[in-house]
Parts: sequence; structure tokens; C-alpha cells
Amino acid sequence: MKTLGVIGGLGPQTTADLYRRIGELVDVSKTGQRPHIIIDSIPITTYLENENIIHEREFEPVLPYLINAAINLEKSGADFIVLACNSLHIFTKEITEAINVPFVSITDTVVQTVLEKGYKKVGLLGTIRTNSSKMYDIPLKKQGVDLYKLDVERQKELNKTIIRLINNTYDQSDSIIFHDAVYKLFDNGVEGVILACTDLHLLMNVTDNFEIIDAMEVLAQRSAKIIQNG
Amino acid sequence: MKTLGVIGGLGPQTTADLYRRIGELVDVSKTGQRPHIIIDSIPITTYLENENIIHEREFEPVLPYLINAAINLEKSGADFIVLACNSLHIFTKEITEAINVPFVSITDTVVQTVLEKGYKKVGLLGTIRTNSSKMYDIPLKKQGVDLYKLDVERQKELNKTIIRLINNTYDQSDSIIFHDAVYKLFDNGVEGVILACTDLHLLMNVTDNFEIIDAMEVLAQRSAKIIQNG
Repeated sequence: MKTLGVIGGLGPQTTADLYRRIGELVDVSKTGQRPHIIIDSIPITTYLENENIIHEREFEPVLPYLINAAINLEKSGADFIVLACNSLHIFTKEITEAINVPFVSITDTVVQTVLEKGYKKVGLLGTIRTNSSKMYDIPLKKQGVDLYKLDVERQKELNKTIIRLINNTYDQSDSIIFHDAVYKLFDNGVEGVILACTDLHLLMNVTDNFEIIDAMEVLAQRSAKIIQNG
Repeated sequence: MKTLGVIGGLGPQTTADLYRRIGELVDVSKTGQRPHIIIDSIPITTYLENENIIHEREFEPVLPYLINAAINLEKSGADFIVLACNSLHIFTKEITEAINVPFVSITDTVVQTVLEKGYKKVGLLGTIRTNSSKMYDIPLKKQGVDLYKLDVERQKELNKTIIRLINNTYDQSDSIIFHDAVYKLFDNGVEGVILACTDLHLLMNVTDNFEIIDAMEVLAQRSAKIIQNG
């Protein structure tokens, strides 16, 4: 079995969910043991966290937190590393270069899932920064997949919801904002919607039956597979 | 702020809950940053896990997992370490001796809470091993507190429930077994019941209004306090 290192804390609730989900997905009746998972939940300042998500400010001050955690996880024995936050995947190159073990990116995992499903038109829900970074647009376009995004006003509203999710102050009105955004994208003819912020899955209802590619879930599945099969 | 190291994975769902709860309890509006938490979720074999909880077998083969994780967490920068499992606190001495940072024990934290509440008679719910180890009897007796336990048959039944909790195969019947056990202890005149297995809190209902000292919750509160105040 491979040891997984998780750069976490963005936010803690989602990291906890990712960890639990991987724990459920690894088939201990086959492996004969629990997965070895090491989580470094980083002490990012709330100032940086909120500024970066609300506005399109520079993310560079966050990078040392990520690099420290990645190096720490590798030193602790992680065979591969994941990051429980979509937006911060703009630093995929920097994290990959800082370590000697594979960094398994959410972006790659989501794009691979879109291709496996055979979609040609997908919607994207994430932070302003994720949308503007084009981290999904470019690899999807290369594969002939069109990407639809929210209009500016709706995107601003969704961003505020994401802040409340991370700060654990969300309520029913955030679920409405989220579901409105999802339906808006389906109105544009998409075949599925990428939840490109790992916290957004917290707003899903068990009764939701639209086609979702949940970044948190696909990362959990991919991680469990690597843990089990190397 | 102090960095917390968690020896986790026993089971993963409870470790995830402990981590999330600490994330909620640390007041980021005061600290200005997220807590730094490192979790080493250990790859214990399911054979050892089940054997130790079902039967009163020797726990010694588990010890190297705990020691490795504790040392790993200290090396990674943990200022203090906790273990998200009650039964394995029989190794408190060995873990404490293996590291140079404080090991904050669940047992001590629970006993301190019982004293703060002024209880003189408390009940205990945990694994067979926790009950037979007398890890709560001795420190409570020293403080003049009487401890009530389940009869052998009920204890065996509860143990099976704990196995199902850890393996995530529990259902409504386990909630009934748990609540029956709780009421049985209150019938004996206890003022509160210690949930001395960190997984048992998963069976609590939001409507439960009996007096519970939940080991998982008191450990979360103590950890958050140390993180914030040193």
C-alpha cells in the first residue's frame, strides 16, 4: 500500500470529509489494513484565506505554507501528495518541483473524469480565482470539451457562499444560491457540472439528481485507488 | 499557537470528527489563523484491530504503530500529541516515554471533567479491554468517585457494536444497544456516563438529553484550548 500525504485545512471540514471518504473507499477486507494517511492541516491566516477568495489578490503569500506542508509530508513518508483545495492548484508546478514524490492534481483527476464520461460541454463552479486562472479551460479545450461559467454577478454571489462554507457560517440560503447556479449552467446545455471548489459538495442534497463531477469525490476515489494499487 | 499532532485512524471516521471539531472550536477570529494540526492515520491491520477489541488479547503488537506515529508527529513539529482512541491509552506510559513533547491523555482529560462537574457516581461505556484495564477506575477512586460498569452480557453486546462502528457497518440496532446500555447505567443511579470509546459518540441522537461525558468531545475541547493558549 502507498502512503498518502494530504495538504489540508482549506477548509478543515472538507479535509475531514476527504479523509473520511478515503477511509471508506479503501477496501480493508482486501488490503488487510487501514490506509496510512498523513494530513498536514496548514495554519494559513484567515486574512490571506478570505482576501484570496473574495478578491483576485495575489496568492503568492500562501505558497510557503503549501511547500512546507508538502516537504513535511514527504519527509514523514508520503508516497504521493494531494492538496484538498482547488484554487491553490495554480501552484501545481511549484509544489511538484519542491518534492520528489508524485503530486496528484485535482485538475488532472477531474479532467480525466470528464473525458471518461464522454462529455463535450461541462459547467464549472468554483471561486473567482479558479475561474479566472483557466486551470480547467485550457486542458479541457485541448481535449475538445467546452467549458461554461457563471456570469459575473452570480459568480460574485457564489464566492461569498464559498467564504461562508470555509468559515462554517453557511445556511439554507447558500444552498439556494448553489442550486440556482447549478441549474443556470444546465440551462446552457451542459452535460455535467464540475464542483471545482472542494467545499461546495457540503451544499449537495441527497435528493439532487443532476450530473455532478465533485472534485472532492473524484480526488478521494483516485487517492483510494493509488493507496490500494500503487 | 501550538501545533497539535494526532495519532489517528482508530477508526478514521472518529479521527475525522475529532479533527473537524477542533477546527470548529479554535476561534480563528482571535487567533487570526487556522490551527496547525498534523494527523498520522496509522495503517493498523484489521486483524489486530478486531482481535483486540472483540477479545482481551494482548495489545502489544499495536504499540510499534503508535510509537512510530508519535515520533513522526514530533519530528513534523507537533508541540503536543493526542491519541484518538481510548482503549490504546493503556500505552500512555510507553508513548510518553518515546517522545519529548507532552502526550495529552484522554483518560486524564475525562477524569478532570468528571471532577469539574462534581460527580460522585459515574458510569462507563467502552470496549471490554478499556473496562478491564481499570484505566478509569483507579484515578477516579483516588478522587472519591465511584465507577459503574455494564454486566458481562451487555458489555459483550456493546463490544460488537463498537466493532461495527469502527468498520462503518453499524445501523439503527446499534443505536438501540447503545441507548439501552446508557439507561441501564442511569438506573444504577449514576450522575453521568463516560463515553470511553471515542467512536460511541457516533450513536448519539441530537435529542438525547442525559448527562454524557464524551471522551471525543472533551479531548477536542482540551486540544483546542492548548492550541490557542499554549
